Amino acid sequence: MPSGEDDLIGRYFKPIATDPGALGLADDAAVLKGGGDDLVITTDAIVEGVHFLSGDPPETVARKALRVNLSDLAAKGATPAGFVMSLALRNADEDWLASFARGLFDDATAFHCPLLGGDTVATPGPLTISVTAFGRMPPGETILRSRAKPGDRIVVSGTIGDASLGLAILTGKIIVGDVDIRESLLDRYRVPQPRISLSGAVRSYARAAMDVSDGLAGDLAKLCAASRVSAVIDAASVPLSDAARALMEQGQTCLESVVSGGDDYEILSTIAEDRLGAFAGAARSAGVAVTLIGTIVAGNAAPKWLDAEGQEIALGRLSYSHF
Amino acid sequence: MPSGEDDLIGRYFKPIATDPGALGLADDAAVLKGGGDDLVITTDAIVEGVHFLSGDPPETVARKALRVNLSDLAAKGATPAGFVMSLALRNADEDWLASFARGLFDDATAFHCPLLGGDTVATPGPLTISVTAFGRMPPGETILRSRAKPGDRIVVSGTIGDASLGLAILTGKIIVGDVDIRESLLDRYRVPQPRISLSGAVRSYARAAMDVSDGLAGDLAKLCAASRVSAVIDAASVPLSDAARALMEQGQTCLESVVSGGDDYEILSTIAEDRLGAFAGAARSAGVAVTLIGTIVAGNAAPKWLDAEGQEIALGRLSYSHF
Repeated sequence: MPSGEDDLIGRYFKPIATDPGALGLADDAAVLKGGGDDLVITTDAIVEGVHFLSGDPPETVARKALRVNLSDLAAKGATPAGFVMSLALRNADEDWLASFARGLFDDATAFHCPLLGGDTVATPGPLTISVTAFGRMPPGETILRSRAKPGDRIVVSGTIGDASLGLAILTGKIIVGDVDIRESLLDRYRVPQPRISLSGAVRSYARAAMDVSDGLAGDLAKLCAASRVSAVIDAASVPLSDAARALMEQGQTCLESVVSGGDDYEILSTIAEDRLGAFAGAARSAGVAVTLIGTIVAGNAAPKWLDAEGQEIALGRLSYSHF
Repeated sequence: MPSGEDDLIGRYFKPIATDPGALGLADDAAVLKGGGDDLVITTDAIVEGVHFLSGDPPETVARKALRVNLSDLAAKGATPAGFVMSLALRNADEDWLASFARGLFDDATAFHCPLLGGDTVATPGPLTISVTAFGRMPPGETILRSRAKPGDRIVVSGTIGDASLGLAILTGKIIVGDVDIRESLLDRYRVPQPRISLSGAVRSYARAAMDVSDGLAGDLAKLCAASRVSAVIDAASVPLSDAARALMEQGQTCLESVVSGGDDYEILSTIAEDRLGAFAGAARSAGVAVTLIGTIVAGNAAPKWLDAEGQEIALGRLSYSHF
């Protein structure tokens, strides 16, 4: 006689629990074979009204919950092994759950990251989804953010600032008439693209790496602080989408907003000069655009952002903080 | 220049992150050495107003969040290796956080289960704490709930029903004049005792096991269903505290409430007859009381609860469900 929770789990989440270690989601725990690997563990929660909006489609909410964690695994060079999820729900709306589970199933399958276990609880508050994801690495090879060295070149994947522009559109802070631009930016906010396909290149060639989730400027500052180095960034080289560039030209956004907005889920890497070519080649094979944006330098000053004339740009804000 | 979140983490949580794999809580992820072990993974969330009350002391909230997970590890026979936590907070109240972190530190230390990583997010809703805990096991030896066999004896640790009586007192459903009885029951609700010290005995001697968190009757039914067996329980042998027994004699509670109330966090094991003595001896050495309450039998009927005269007791409710 299953309780309501067991019933929900059996119906919606068991199909995603394809790994034998998930024990069919019917035990207290999951079992992950350690093998000889190191396990890379990351945990990120998303909250309705904070990290996604209550009107967002359930499928994209599920994808975002998993993908923000996959992004961390990619930045460490790890191969996804599975995830556990705790889901705090106001009520057990079957349509919502069916759609949420469909999004989760699609991504778990696409990224070879099966559901291993979870917990479903009731909440009187906003929907809250906490995911802990696991990746495998050869022992001792995890790419840390603390290993950058002066002379390393700084590379970032994809484009920066799109997701924060998508959020600005959704919350009415900016108005974008062009449907294609609007949709492309909303999509970047709702469904991050975790750079899992880049993780092999990061593992093989990066000295230090982290994912960009709280704003490129702030996250670069964190990487530099962890590595006890500084950096010089050529602001004009920061990769922007056509959509972001158009909005910048219209004066609807500016460099500071773009590099301090969150939710990019791109990978920031530092790479020794002599490995840059190999990294770029591996990224090309992986189908992920990467752009050289600056250089690590000695010292503990805040990273310097330079404009096209080599003049320093003062950034008033580096990243998004919820507190 | 740390953001607010990094600042909070550094101040309150870094001291609990004593494992080198936590990377000082300064990276995107943690690294757990797999060694040759299997990793047992469990995740449980607790929500203010659902699993704890907003007036509960922050120290006990932290302990409960960790302990409900440690209870799962103990039931699988695993040795704690660490945990990650995501914390959804309405605001960053420093006094609250300091007290919460103190409770977490004490338990992480006492149970040798260091903080490996986490995520702190803002929520407009109730405080929500999701913990994922890791335990180690020799490969293939994790004790599952699906391995019970007819003839196994059914044993439960500690006493049953106290936590649900504590909750009934806190929510005004029952009134208890005796201060000692009241405090002992409140304590059982607020601060579960995970039977980590029993995990070695479970690992060595149990055939199947699970922790009792949603009510003994319902959890036993789940174990039987997972193992495709049934059970006969001698209701009079279910271990009760003096406090619970006194309230039962006063008519403030009854057997059905006691065995269907949640939050016991005791361990339900099934043990082959010829290993029962060894299990009892190991439990005694571990300082945990264990009580024989029944026998696994063949079939797929619901477990039978018998009174002192051998008559079947009809239980109207087996467990607590939030949905």
